[in-house]
Amino acid sequence: MDKHKRTYAIVGTGAVGGFFGAKLNRAGFDVHFLLHNDYSHVRIHGLTIDSKAGDFVVPHVKAYRSARDMPACDVAIVALKTTNNSVLPDVLPPILKHDGVVLVLQNGLGNEEEISKIVGGNKVMAGLCYICSNKVGPGHIRHWDLGNITLAEYIGDGLAAGTTPRMMALAEDFQRAEIGIKLANDLLLARWKKLVWNVPYNGLSVILNAMTDQLMKNPSTRSLVADIMSEVVTGAASCGHPIAESFVQEMLDYTDSMVPYKTSMKIDFDERRRMEVESIFGNPLRAIRKAGGSSPLIEMLYHELKFLDDESQSLRTPRSLLRG
Amino acid sequence: MDKHKRTYAIVGTGAVGGFFGAKLNRAGFDVHFLLHNDYSHVRIHGLTIDSKAGDFVVPHVKAYRSARDMPACDVAIVALKTTNNSVLPDVLPPILKHDGVVLVLQNGLGNEEEISKIVGGNKVMAGLCYICSNKVGPGHIRHWDLGNITLAEYIGDGLAAGTTPRMMALAEDFQRAEIGIKLANDLLLARWKKLVWNVPYNGLSVILNAMTDQLMKNPSTRSLVADIMSEVVTGAASCGHPIAESFVQEMLDYTDSMVPYKTSMKIDFDERRRMEVESIFGNPLRAIRKAGGSSPLIEMLYHELKFLDDESQSLRTPRSLLRG
Repeated sequence: MDKHKRTYAIVGTGAVGGFFGAKLNRAGFDVHFLLHNDYSHVRIHGLTIDSKAGDFVVPHVKAYRSARDMPACDVAIVALKTTNNSVLPDVLPPILKHDGVVLVLQNGLGNEEEISKIVGGNKVMAGLCYICSNKVGPGHIRHWDLGNITLAEYIGDGLAAGTTPRMMALAEDFQRAEIGIKLANDLLLARWKKLVWNVPYNGLSVILNAMTDQLMKNPSTRSLVADIMSEVVTGAASCGHPIAESFVQEMLDYTDSMVPYKTSMKIDFDERRRMEVESIFGNPLRAIRKAGGSSPLIEMLYHELKFLDDESQSLRTPRSLLRG
Repeated sequence: MDKHKRTYAIVGTGAVGGFFGAKLNRAGFDVHFLLHNDYSHVRIHGLTIDSKAGDFVVPHVKAYRSARDMPACDVAIVALKTTNNSVLPDVLPPILKHDGVVLVLQNGLGNEEEISKIVGGNKVMAGLCYICSNKVGPGHIRHWDLGNITLAEYIGDGLAAGTTPRMMALAEDFQRAEIGIKLANDLLLARWKKLVWNVPYNGLSVILNAMTDQLMKNPSTRSLVADIMSEVVTGAASCGHPIAESFVQEMLDYTDSMVPYKTSMKIDFDERRRMEVESIFGNPLRAIRKAGGSSPLIEMLYHELKFLDDESQSLRTPRSLLRG
């Protein structure tokens, strides 16, 4: 990767990929955006970012409808919902230089492994996003809060990879683009720690039609959230990624301090998109089972969400008309 | 109890109490109905039963607005929702003869114990209702399917009480009123067996906004239903009420054979009434805990339902407007 001319491809120009891609673009990087539904709009009007850190527009966007029309880039940022990962075997090879790297900005477990099978295990890095943002219209993203990325190296054996030069290089680019960066030594530990938050709040927000503050205020769900968090911590340990039990309280306190928040899974559900049930629930569950552990609460969340996901995809009338 | 002149009081003249009370009335028994909202309507128009076994009307109903105006009866049938049990200390004493008996037609665990504290432990019997019926208007009940009662004696120590003369006497009255009757030797065993069905279907129907057939058709919820049933069976055993594990498959087959069914808890929820969360979930959960067992799935259902119940009671706008 040439330090001074690093080029970026954005796969998934939505609430996450659109936001970070626009920031890299604004900072002077050469960024190529793959678009689907929003292609025509963005080609003409560019990207509009309403951000708590300052609104801005990228008027001229290098937009593409097909990966085959894009140049090979140094970094391909994958910010698709994991439910669309089936397109990646077609999309990734043409847009990646032979010494390029894929940066996976997706939720849950197992995505790096899946992508390494397409591009090779030495071409994958991960970024864990801590951001509240929505796509509110074509090429129009609203950024509510946070906006940091924790970078981590992927190595196939699941061990901690430490900090590498290419991590540092990407961190430098992102910081130049005013994106807060942390570095993690151990990708899977970082992923499990993020699951401690994502599993209870993403799951219960959909199942119980609730914002984070409602789940925290009600004593029944507050205690259930804590129980689910503890189960994720136990599961992570059984998979070889020990997390301190105090992290549960830390996450509860963190959520108490947040503004009332609608989880990304709840947004997907409300907008009748497939939910990331497999990456956030199914894959951790299978990892825990494989390690000989059991996790009844995660398993119940998984089954409840699979049902709601299937129903939401099979019904055409708006959900609001079906709720009694 | 005088065999030839047995008098009945109905506390809770709704889908269950109204239906069985009307049948007893039609069969010539002297039945006194305690009513609240529907009092004026029923006083004038009587009770209307649309039943798959034949529609009928009870034109002249002995209706009362207050228990203090009612005569003391041989049998007081309690068919209130358990969420209204707080009225029973005022209602029951005046309507019960000194040698009378309370027949508890309520769901879940712990109701007989609660009522025995009001009227004395030797004055309580239980009936487990297997019936699909709704109140569709004031004094108007629609009976869809089933309609049987399993009678059992209550004795405070939780042991099997066997078949007693007063059980036989009530069974005779009910059969004369064309109400199907079975006799159970062991009340708590019967209650736990009913919970094997009620816990998964009542719980998941509310949480997932589903009818029984949807829960059975989707492989995720089908497997979850079976897991929850097994947990109830294990819990019952830990409380000293062993149920054969084959009963789980029996209940699954039974539900497969049923017409698509909206559970009573789902009806309560949709009509914004308090749900019977404590009697069907909280009390079994506490019994299992007290016996040293654990039941994570029932506990999670309990917490989810408590949240939904609290939210439903705290919100004034119709739920259908709130579901996204």
